Amino acid sequence: MILINGEQRDTLEITDRGLHYGDGLFETIEISQGRPVFLTRHLARLKTGCQVLHLPYPKETLLLDEIQHVSRSVDHGILKLMLTRGSGGRGYRQPEVIHTTRLLALYPFPDYPAYYKSEGINARFCTSRLGLNPMLAGIKHNNRLEQVLARAEWQDEFQEGLMLNLNEQVIEGTMTNLFLVKEGVLYTPEIVLSGIRGVLREIILEIAKINNIPFKVTSLTQEFVLLADELFVTNSVIGIWPVKSLAGKTYTLGSVTQKISHYLAEYKTSEQGSAC
Amino acid sequence: MILINGEQRDTLEITDRGLHYGDGLFETIEISQGRPVFLTRHLARLKTGCQVLHLPYPKETLLLDEIQHVSRSVDHGILKLMLTRGSGGRGYRQPEVIHTTRLLALYPFPDYPAYYKSEGINARFCTSRLGLNPMLAGIKHNNRLEQVLARAEWQDEFQEGLMLNLNEQVIEGTMTNLFLVKEGVLYTPEIVLSGIRGVLREIILEIAKINNIPFKVTSLTQEFVLLADELFVTNSVIGIWPVKSLAGKTYTLGSVTQKISHYLAEYKTSEQGSAC
Repeated sequence: MILINGEQRDTLEITDRGLHYGDGLFETIEISQGRPVFLTRHLARLKTGCQVLHLPYPKETLLLDEIQHVSRSVDHGILKLMLTRGSGGRGYRQPEVIHTTRLLALYPFPDYPAYYKSEGINARFCTSRLGLNPMLAGIKHNNRLEQVLARAEWQDEFQEGLMLNLNEQVIEGTMTNLFLVKEGVLYTPEIVLSGIRGVLREIILEIAKINNIPFKVTSLTQEFVLLADELFVTNSVIGIWPVKSLAGKTYTLGSVTQKISHYLAEYKTSEQGSAC
Repeated sequence: MILINGEQRDTLEITDRGLHYGDGLFETIEISQGRPVFLTRHLARLKTGCQVLHLPYPKETLLLDEIQHVSRSVDHGILKLMLTRGSGGRGYRQPEVIHTTRLLALYPFPDYPAYYKSEGINARFCTSRLGLNPMLAGIKHNNRLEQVLARAEWQDEFQEGLMLNLNEQVIEGTMTNLFLVKEGVLYTPEIVLSGIRGVLREIILEIAKINNIPFKVTSLTQEFVLLADELFVTNSVIGIWPVKSLAGKTYTLGSVTQKISHYLAEYKTSEQGSAC
């Protein structure tokens, strides 16, 4: 099912600025038994993105109604929720009154093998570099050519590619955030110049804080990542995937990764029972 | 008139990757008496963009037929020609077989006052910075949030805003390339880390070469730009707009700008008579 501004249809006016300039934002949300998982957090990030792009955030009750309408009969799936600046304006100049386009589209849940989670994945370093742009870093906007080009570097030999930015800092995977464990400390790259602040990344940092797992959000080099004791990648659809191989090195599914996976499963269950 | 893959319609499938990721390229082409101006050069840049994005370039005879079909009865207008990676693939991963979407849309020619050209425009420096990404610099891709945010900084007080990149180099206007004259030498910023290599920018550099106007393509600071004897901005729709004021400084329409404008008019006339 696809809903555009509340109407069931599968095409969009070609005047929409989402198409012309990637002038929009999106969230990819797991639907489990009719319920959007981590919805409050997805909407919070979307709202932050709207502030950065000066894009009017829709009335939340309307958005929640539409999300519920699309999700309620879904056992397990993905909801892609997109907001764009709609039509109008001349060239890059936005219209005086912006009518944000709301787009909700359902997708089947991806059929990733269960052993990605239990045994880990094979990862690589991408050649494509993330650019530097502090103005746009963090938010999940629709300007995603860097990820498209990085993902085109391999086929099925790997499950994820890690990306460095122009400053040679390791930032994230093409579709995931990166964590590593070194001597009992959890590390994840700071998202300041490049990258997306993932919903699951934030949750894992909170889990670490609550459970007294020491952690650092900092700049990471390729050398430091390769010397990690444990490595894992995250997003709100896949959860946690341990990395078992990267650039010729192998890693075991370590105790900190297991502990965090356990706490995350608990968090997800408790969140499903709560009102959010 | 709008043509999508040869069909007259005004909506696009919401699965198109142009919408989701800005996964595409575009050209904005002046149509004069049914004829697309500088077409060969626009198509050459589009082809370069396709190579960078690994996007299959459509059969050129097909593209030329569609361009002619849309343009032939237009006295004066704008043709926006867009190519996107079409639908398919999962997430950032592109489909194995890419069916490039061809989108041609006609717009009225913008009603800019004639004195922008004869007397010059008021320009400003934007606060928004262009990011750094050598992989994407030069080509006219659809990831244009930087320009959208920069253009949102003012309303009608100015006709163009100049953008610096993160390295504090002056790169271009939001919709134009920048040239300046200092002690008889023509300067334009190098487009290596940020910015678009405009069709008219290339033509003007060729005009300078042919007519023995000394020129430099180099890195330019804000201070150097402000100390210019002459300043002008260019794109293939507006041609040349002299800058008469920038950040409190005023500039006169100088002899080099006039000379280049004259040569450009000649070039445009001769190009209209040629086969390209």
